[in-house]
Amino acid sequence: MTVALIAIDWGTSAARAYSLDARGAILDERSAALGVQKVDPGEFPSALATLLGGAVPSDIPMIACGMIGSRQGWVEAPYRECPAGFAAIASALTPVPGTRLRIVPGLICRDADGVPDVMRGEETQILGALEDDASGRAAPHVVVLPGTHSKWALVEAGRIEAFATFMTGELYALLREHSILGRLAARDGRDDGAFERGVAASLPQAAALTHDLFSARTLPLTGGLALEGVGDYLSGLLLGAEIGAARRWLQRRTVKGDSVILVGEAALCERYRRALALAGIESTTGAAAAAARGLWRIARQSGILTR
Amino acid sequence: MTVALIAIDWGTSAARAYSLDARGAILDERSAALGVQKVDPGEFPSALATLLGGAVPSDIPMIACGMIGSRQGWVEAPYRECPAGFAAIASALTPVPGTRLRIVPGLICRDADGVPDVMRGEETQILGALEDDASGRAAPHVVVLPGTHSKWALVEAGRIEAFATFMTGELYALLREHSILGRLAARDGRDDGAFERGVAASLPQAAALTHDLFSARTLPLTGGLALEGVGDYLSGLLLGAEIGAARRWLQRRTVKGDSVILVGEAALCERYRRALALAGIESTTGAAAAAARGLWRIARQSGILTR
Repeated sequence: MTVALIAIDWGTSAARAYSLDARGAILDERSAALGVQKVDPGEFPSALATLLGGAVPSDIPMIACGMIGSRQGWVEAPYRECPAGFAAIASALTPVPGTRLRIVPGLICRDADGVPDVMRGEETQILGALEDDASGRAAPHVVVLPGTHSKWALVEAGRIEAFATFMTGELYALLREHSILGRLAARDGRDDGAFERGVAASLPQAAALTHDLFSARTLPLTGGLALEGVGDYLSGLLLGAEIGAARRWLQRRTVKGDSVILVGEAALCERYRRALALAGIESTTGAAAAAARGLWRIARQSGILTR
Repeated sequence: MTVALIAIDWGTSAARAYSLDARGAILDERSAALGVQKVDPGEFPSALATLLGGAVPSDIPMIACGMIGSRQGWVEAPYRECPAGFAAIASALTPVPGTRLRIVPGLICRDADGVPDVMRGEETQILGALEDDASGRAAPHVVVLPGTHSKWALVEAGRIEAFATFMTGELYALLREHSILGRLAARDGRDDGAFERGVAASLPQAAALTHDLFSARTLPLTGGLALEGVGDYLSGLLLGAEIGAARRWLQRRTVKGDSVILVGEAALCERYRRALALAGIESTTGAAAAAARGLWRIARQSGILTR
């Protein structure tokens, strides 16, 4: 099959390139630890060549999303305001001079107080995760992307209306690696009961995370939680806080949010699925290779596909 | 003047010893970086001698509070259940064999769901911070001890009824030293406006800390906050979350909490005073050298004073 598009998910720590045919099927996939944080300014052309296996083809259109379009990336692709759908995003690709590469803009939205929230790369995954018929679906749906900075996005008729970021994954890593709780949680183990207890403790609006976190210390201290369960309990506390707050965010926007689409790494999505179920929220898993699908759909909409 | 009591505030990282006369006045004060975390088991007798300047007197009673009574300390002084006042604490001192040293117990309390909270050392500071006439005061008052693990304690008629811990200081240090926000906040500066904005953003019950923290990234990114203000904004977000949650904790206990007593390091108390004022909470500063005063009062109550 002929390669019609090279689609690159180019993030902070790694880059992944997909060769796609004219129907968007993945022909080949390559990845490299050449994330934006690891490439010096000026070295992006050679990083791209390395990622693609030695040479950058001059006859194939390329598209990239993620931190590659940030101020620390190759060329800055300014944020687009929400709401934004395929048309708005596809019309705002930023070309990289001297190449056939175009960069997908990130998105920005503002809450009622004018405080901004941003995403780069997730907009493409969200558009890729939608089922083919969903892009035109009128009813709003909610897409959740678990991760270092988890995103909850409200999607309506193929447009991303608004979104909210939660620093769940980064806080978990900080607490595990550097806090007094992490020293307790050093004994690894899987404890589903501890995880569910953590979720249940921090879901209610009356919960207070900076207080509840201390119970990951006092419970094992008083025999109320096995040391092996501290890591899962901590994870539960953080997920419960995220889900509780996100649900209230949806309610303020008069969205029911009783079912969501999960997009991300399988084990992490499964963890979210269990936590969401405790909150009475159903979840389904979004289409696989969401970034590649999203990049292909945006490229097709933008008219850069030549085959 | 003759030394009637040696009183030691012996914490995780440092120890401070006070020589007190028969009326509780401080005659001398010594400190050393010989906190519990820095002393090997079995080395506590020599650490005490070093702290006291070479020799441990055999003719003077000694009393200590803090982590020295934890499982990692010299001798474990089991937690006392709340409510606990002078009498309950003074009757539960744990003697250290072979010395005239006694250790003040920490306190434990449980919330409506049975989740425990603990303190060690702060109970002594709280009892020391009360004005002489306050120990018998019937109306409840609230004592706040800012720090790595801030404590809010509800005190009634000289008894500590209940308390709640907030990991505010530890979270601030983690975020400044190890997070993506800390890298932004590397440029130090004092920005009172940014601090107050952070407090105001996270005081309301509708606030969600793991989401709001991300605004310490998006605001400077979009020109809505100077980089010099990121540290103070972050501090404000964490203090606002603590104060908002603590106020709701007091309300659930039907305590008005419109004024509190602050006990701790002066600059940190001033920061709390400003944040509390934004929440409409008045604050006064507790008596200085609260730990020494508390240790002296507990020793007197316990009958170990011989002069």
